[in-house]
Parts: sequence; structure tokens; C-alpha cells
Amino acid sequence: MFEAAELGKTLSKREYDKLQPRLQETLLEAHLEIKKAGLPVIIIISGVSGSGKAELLHRLNEWLDPRGVDTHAMWQESDEEEERPLYWRYWRRMPAKGRVGIFLGSWYTKPIVDRVYGRNKKRDPRDAMDRVRAMEEMLSNDGALIIKLWFHRSRASQKTNLKSLSRNPKKKWRVRPADWENFRRFDDFMRISEDALRHTDSGSAPWHVVDAFDRRYRELTSGQIILQSIQDRLKALPKREPVNLPPAFTVKVKGRGPDTILDAVDLRQRLNEREYEKLLKEHQAELSRLVWQSNKRGRSSVIVFEGWDAAGKGSAIRRVTGAMDPRLYQVIPVAAPTDEERAHHYLWRFWRNIPRDGKLVIFDRSWYGRVLVERVENFATPEEWQRAFLEINDFEEQLTEHQTMVTKFWLHISKDEQLRRFKERKATAAKRYKITEEDWRNRGRWDAYKLAVNEMVEHTSTGPAPWTLVAGNDKKFARIQILRTLCENLRRGL
Amino acid sequence: MFEAAELGKTLSKREYDKLQPRLQETLLEAHLEIKKAGLPVIIIISGVSGSGKAELLHRLNEWLDPRGVDTHAMWQESDEEEERPLYWRYWRRMPAKGRVGIFLGSWYTKPIVDRVYGRNKKRDPRDAMDRVRAMEEMLSNDGALIIKLWFHRSRASQKTNLKSLSRNPKKKWRVRPADWENFRRFDDFMRISEDALRHTDSGSAPWHVVDAFDRRYRELTSGQIILQSIQDRLKALPKREPVNLPPAFTVKVKGRGPDTILDAVDLRQRLNEREYEKLLKEHQAELSRLVWQSNKRGRSSVIVFEGWDAAGKGSAIRRVTGAMDPRLYQVIPVAAPTDEERAHHYLWRFWRNIPRDGKLVIFDRSWYGRVLVERVENFATPEEWQRAFLEINDFEEQLTEHQTMVTKFWLHISKDEQLRRFKERKATAAKRYKITEEDWRNRGRWDAYKLAVNEMVEHTSTGPAPWTLVAGNDKKFARIQILRTLCENLRRGL
Repeated sequence: MFEAAELGKTLSKREYDKLQPRLQETLLEAHLEIKKAGLPVIIIISGVSGSGKAELLHRLNEWLDPRGVDTHAMWQESDEEEERPLYWRYWRRMPAKGRVGIFLGSWYTKPIVDRVYGRNKKRDPRDAMDRVRAMEEMLSNDGALIIKLWFHRSRASQKTNLKSLSRNPKKKWRVRPADWENFRRFDDFMRISEDALRHTDSGSAPWHVVDAFDRRYRELTSGQIILQSIQDRLKALPKREPVNLPPAFTVKVKGRGPDTILDAVDLRQRLNEREYEKLLKEHQAELSRLVWQSNKRGRSSVIVFEGWDAAGKGSAIRRVTGAMDPRLYQVIPVAAPTDEERAHHYLWRFWRNIPRDGKLVIFDRSWYGRVLVERVENFATPEEWQRAFLEINDFEEQLTEHQTMVTKFWLHISKDEQLRRFKERKATAAKRYKITEEDWRNRGRWDAYKLAVNEMVEHTSTGPAPWTLVAGNDKKFARIQILRTLCENLRRGL
Repeated sequence: MFEAAELGKTLSKREYDKLQPRLQETLLEAHLEIKKAGLPVIIIISGVSGSGKAELLHRLNEWLDPRGVDTHAMWQESDEEEERPLYWRYWRRMPAKGRVGIFLGSWYTKPIVDRVYGRNKKRDPRDAMDRVRAMEEMLSNDGALIIKLWFHRSRASQKTNLKSLSRNPKKKWRVRPADWENFRRFDDFMRISEDALRHTDSGSAPWHVVDAFDRRYRELTSGQIILQSIQDRLKALPKREPVNLPPAFTVKVKGRGPDTILDAVDLRQRLNEREYEKLLKEHQAELSRLVWQSNKRGRSSVIVFEGWDAAGKGSAIRRVTGAMDPRLYQVIPVAAPTDEERAHHYLWRFWRNIPRDGKLVIFDRSWYGRVLVERVENFATPEEWQRAFLEINDFEEQLTEHQTMVTKFWLHISKDEQLRRFKERKATAAKRYKITEEDWRNRGRWDAYKLAVNEMVEHTSTGPAPWTLVAGNDKKFARIQILRTLCENLRRGL
């Protein structure tokens, strides 16, 4: 879930100085409406240590009306708190209706830290997350708006960060010994945090992972997320109170660095014919071996292909299946649902096609349609596609718990390359059937799809079922990347 | 959660023959509207073995239009099913929109049986229930109506039942060896089932516990619950489809035997002055010891008093506190919420007053107001008070997990006795302030309150935090019963 926040985005001082006053102004207006509407707002700031969480807390106190804000830096439990059930300390700090409560450190901290350090083994740590979910659902049912921010830094940037802070005499105090101790367990922290986020990424209280590399970028992005969440909620309120919507102004925080995780894919990667033929042969041979082996061990696989129109899904799938015994696999092309499928929950058609032990199913498009085409084309309501992240993660968790190996590919190409291929198809009689009006329409919504793909990866690229972004401008390179990834995943899983 | 279903209610053949045709007719009409509305309906029949679950399945197939019903008697997993994730077998059987799927044996069976027999220790069994909850929430979000019936029999009646079946040559085959094996673990089954029900008793998919002692009573009651659930859902549908509500006819299944669990309380129990004085002294002395002991061990207590107006809560509380060192306890009288309390979640005011370790808090009325006065007076919507059962159980579970001992009393008196006391109060100058217009108004809603109390006990009397129904017509008897129960609970908890 964190890959999309490892782009190291930055924002220039000039840009910041231009946007910041407008953001502040709109936030202040939004804050006024919160009071009028009697809306309790809970803002949770979490993430890796030393990533600027406390700085944001200060900033929010500048941006909002401090008379309406309660700030809670949750530190050690007091003895008053230790002598009561765990959640007492949070309940006593709950914001009243019309107030904003900002929590630095929250009900997430203790379960995550306990699990990293192997404390509190008595209870399944996932249990703690289910309690969190129940708690947030309860508050949300009661009308509270819950905004959850996760500040992320990559391992490398975190190391540089801690080192440079330690060297700076003025900032040295900010690094506690615990921060280095935590850094030694960085990978554990990430794995366990991801698990925690995944189980609490609900429609009513979704997570927002923020690239925390640069102060200006992360603060403005956080402010923008908070503003957007408040605006969305105010809009959805029943029209009892005379609440005015703050101006629909949204700050476009672009920042330097790749715009989305898709832009970070190096599309210049290519293979020449000779390399390609050689690697194809090698990888197909290995894949064939691995698929037989997983059959013998009774292990099943699910492989998902998603990607831009004309990105080469079909031909890539043929290179994959070319290496397999037809008795072992099945390809499920996913188009518009049948009548029967439409009469069921959207996941039903995919459950139908789950492989038996030892078999392999390739989905040519998949359940991710819910958060891609259905989202962009408004076939699903925001509420529906937002809660789909949790539903999909739960679905894939059930697969991986059953020891099914899950591999997911997004075939990425540039917008120019897509145009080139569309034109080529139009010109080639045999390929003309492959290009439709719809393809051109989808192309018109490229940016909306890009945003949706980015969020899809942010919310559903998980430890047990990660996404692989394929550099697809060169079909040969793409096919080899797919075969290689697949072999690696099977090898690791077996 | 099962006490309310141990009344052993019966229905005469005459009554059954009178009601059954009308129920069937209305159910058929409701079924027609289900189809029109495209509503998927999932009916789960669970409960103790040999309690007539399969019989109900047959009956429902008679009562509904069999062309619109899918019946699933879930038995052993097939090899097809074993080779896929656990829920695959349920997904393939999900009813389509407009159809009714009846499940005999469901996603509840395996986790409960596994836990009773100590199988599958790898995973926290509560985890399984959280998955169930997520699943039901997902289906419900998608528009499905989920009706969950639990057939209960008391231990004694279950034994008689199995014996008489075994003796009857025609019915002998219905008793499998596993049924006796299950019976030997009856108490484990009940404890674990209660835990499962408690964690899945959500507002969107609530449990209905049915007294299964008598065939006619349980079948008609089940039919009535199903009809009511369908009617409520059809009413709540957005008015897109031309759906007609089936006639508002509801079958009043009274049955013989006590009407509610309150009617099963023997209000004739009395104590004479001498016995009372002696027992009062003894119990107060023991309570005093126990309260000091729990203080030394750092164990806290929460005691809840609820009951009819004029049932004697105040004087009973004074007999309890009379035995305690004032430094150790606090009494929280709960009246209408303050402005500050009203600005928070309804549980907030109770979290405020949770005792520290070693201390004791007595709530004179409590969070149960949500499912009593707020329900009856329509201060809370049906959705709000229905989900409160889960919220309250979760709240009390957090208390008991913190080793806080929870004791809950409902002070019961007869309607006549209440009238007598009201009149007496009116006549006594010193007590006149105690009786208000509101008391008379509440009295007018006696039956609505009785129903609410019955459901409250059904949904929130749990292993770790059970309800005690106090026979309050004789104040002396009531006080001794309270002191005795309290001493027992503290002794057991310490």
C-alpha cells in the first residue's frame, strides 16, 4: 500500500507560498461550517517516526480556528489510564459535535508497536484491528467524520532523514533512541502497518497514505485531503441546517517528481529481438516446470491482468499460456456481466471461477473493474467503490489464506503509444475489429483512469497480493517482465 | 442470550390451525413482492441439534412459492469445495436478486463446531466471526436481506427430546451418534454459540433466538419473524419499483407459557422481617469484605440498576452502598443527558465514569436507556437502537477484558404493584416529589417496555455480563436477592 507514496515528491517554496494562503482560507471557512453543522471531526495523524507528524499538528492549528480544535499528542498512558480499559483514553478525548479533534498517535499505535516488538502475544493482533474497525464504524454511524492520514517514507529516505537530523545540532533532539530502534525494524513496521491499514481501510473511514518526503508537499497534500473530506461530508449532510458549502476551490498540489506511481514506471525499457527470443524460451521453460510443480503440490494460482486499452494484455496472456499444459489453466475473459451475474453481488462472478487446488486461472480484466471502469464511468457510487477496497482486500486475503498464489499485473503504456497503436489497428484490416468507439471514449478519460489506477495500487497492493506495474511500451520487454515476475512469485510461493 | 428462549412456550393445535393459513397467505404475497423488488433474501436456520431446523425448512417450502426458493442443506464439504477457499461453497449458493435462499447450516456451523471440539487452533476463532460480520455487511450493503434464526432448547428439554426420539421407532433415525456427542458438550456449545451470536448481532443482520420447545410455536414464530423482516425491508426500499406492501397483518403468536422472560419471574417470593434482617446483616458483611478484597487486588466493578418506575432501585442501591467504604464506590444517577453529553456519542457519558482499578461504580439507570426509553419513545431510530445491541456488547466486553466485573439488575414488579406504589406515593407528602407525569405516561406504555426489556435481555445477557431479573414485588426479597447475586458475582470474579 505504500509504493505509491515512495515517489519522493517535492513542492517548491514559490508554489507553496502561492497555494498555502488559499488553502488556509478555505479550511477556515470549512471549519466554520463544521461548527454550524454540529459535525464532530476526528483527524488521525499516523506514520513512520520522524516523518513530520508533529509539524503537521502545529500547521493545522494555524490553519484552523484554534478555539474549535482539540489537540491530543498521545504519549505514554497515565496511571489513570492504565487502570481502565484501553479505549478510555480515547473516549475522554473524543471531540464534541462541531469540534475538530486531532490525534497524534491513536488507537493504531499500540497494536502496531506491540506486534512489531512481539509483545502482548495473548491476543491475535488482528483482533485489535477488528475492534478499531467496530469503533470507527460506531463513531461514523453516529455522524462523525474520520480522516486518517498515514505519513510514509521509503526505507532509504528514512535512513537519510534520521542521519541528517542527528547531525544537525539544532534538530538532534528530535531523534529519540527509540527512533533508531524502530528503524532497525523498518521492514517489520511496514509489513505490520500495511496489515493494520488494510483491515481498517473502510468506506466510512478510509486511509490516505501521504508521501512525507518533503515538508511542503506533505503539509499541503494533507491540508487538501482534509479539506476535500470535509467538503464531501458537508455536501452529503441532510439539508436541515443552514450549512453553506465552502467554495469548491481545491488546491492542485502537483509537486515535483512523478505525478502518480504510473509515471514512475520507466517506459523506455526495451529488449531487442535476440535477447527477447532467448529470455522467452528460458522463462517459458521455467514457468512450465513451476506450474507442474504447483499442480503436484496442490497449490492453486490466480493471475490478474489489467491495463490500458491496447496495452497488449491479450498477447501477453498468450505468451503465458503458451508455456502451460492446457489441462492446468483456464482464461476467464471479463466483459460486461451476464444477466445472471448482474443479479448477484459484483464479486459473485469471480468467486464462480476460483481455481481448484493445483489449477491456475487467468483473469483478463477482473474484480478491479469495480474501482476502475465502474468508478470512472459512475456505474458505482463513491460509497460503493470506496468500500470495494476493503471488500477486495478481504476477498484476496481469503484466497491467500487458502494458499492460492495471487499475482496482479497492470500493463502500462504512454498515452502517445496508445494513440500509435490505435492508429495502427485502424490501418490493419485484421486488427480493426479490436478498436471500438468505447476505446476512444476511454482514452478521453485518461487522467481520471490514471488517478483511479494510482488509488487502486495505493489501497490494494498488499504483502500477500502485490501489484506489478509492467512497462508496456515495448511489448517484448513487457512480456518478459510478466513471465519473470510470475516465475518469481510461483517460486517464492511454493 | 438464550434465557429468554427457555420458557418452553407451546401453541395449541386450534390456535395453529387458525393462524397458519393467514400467515401462509401473507408470506406468499410478500414473496411475490420480493420478486418484483429484485430483493435477494438469505434465511439462515441455525441452533441446537434436533430442534426442528429441517422441519422448518420443509414448512417454508410449503409456505413460499417453491419456484422462487433455493434450499441448501449444507452438509460435509465436497472435494470440489475443500479445494477452494472456505466461502466458495456459500458464494456458489447465493440467491440471485428476487430469490430466497434458505441455508440449513451456514457459515456459522464450522467455526462453532471447530471451537467446541478444539480443532483448528491455529486461528483465533473470533477471527472467523469477524469474517462472517464482514461478509454479512458486504451482502447487506449490496441490498440483500439477511434473516438469521437460532433455534434454542434448554439443556433439560434437549435431553428429554433426544431420549424420546431415540425411543420412538419411527423417529429414531433422526438421532445421529453425533447428536449425543454434541449433547455431552451442551454447555460448551451454548457458551461458544453465544459468543458467536454476540459478535455477529449487527443492525443489518440481527439474530432472532426462537424458543424451539414446541413445533407449532417455533414454526409460527419463525414465519412471523420472516414476514416481519420482509415487510420492514420492503417498506424501507426506495420507491423506484412498483412494489406493493403485503397487508400489514401480523400474526400474534402468543402461545401458552409465560409471555416474556419477565413473566417467568416468580413475583410471589417474599421474606418476613426477621429473615430479612438476618440475611441483610450477613450479606452486607460479606459484601463489605469482598469490596475491600477487590480493592486490594486492583479489580474494579460496574453495577447497573435498571427497572420499572417505583420498582425500588433507589432503596436497593442504598442497601448496597450501606455496606461499602465511601472511598471505594461512586453512584452515577443517569437522567436526561447534559448539553455536553448530548454533544457526544451516547456511550461517551458512561465511558467518562468507568471506575479505576480497585473501585466500584453503580449506575442508577445506564446505557441501556438506548434500547429502552430511547427505543420506546422513538428518540432513537430503529436502525440506531438495533445496532446498539452490538455496540453495548462490545463496550461491556472491553470492560470484562480489562477484568472489570459487570453485574446488571433489572428490578421487576407487576403492573398492579406499580399502581399500588404510585398511589401510595401520591398519598405520602414526603414521597410525592418522586412521582411525575412522566411516570404515568411510561406506565401507559407498559407492554412496549416489556417487549423492549425482553429483547434487551435476549441480546445482551452474555456469559461475561449476564442480566439478573429481580423479583421486586416484595422489597425485602428484592434487596436480599440483589446483595446475594452481587456477592456471588464478586466471589466468582475474584
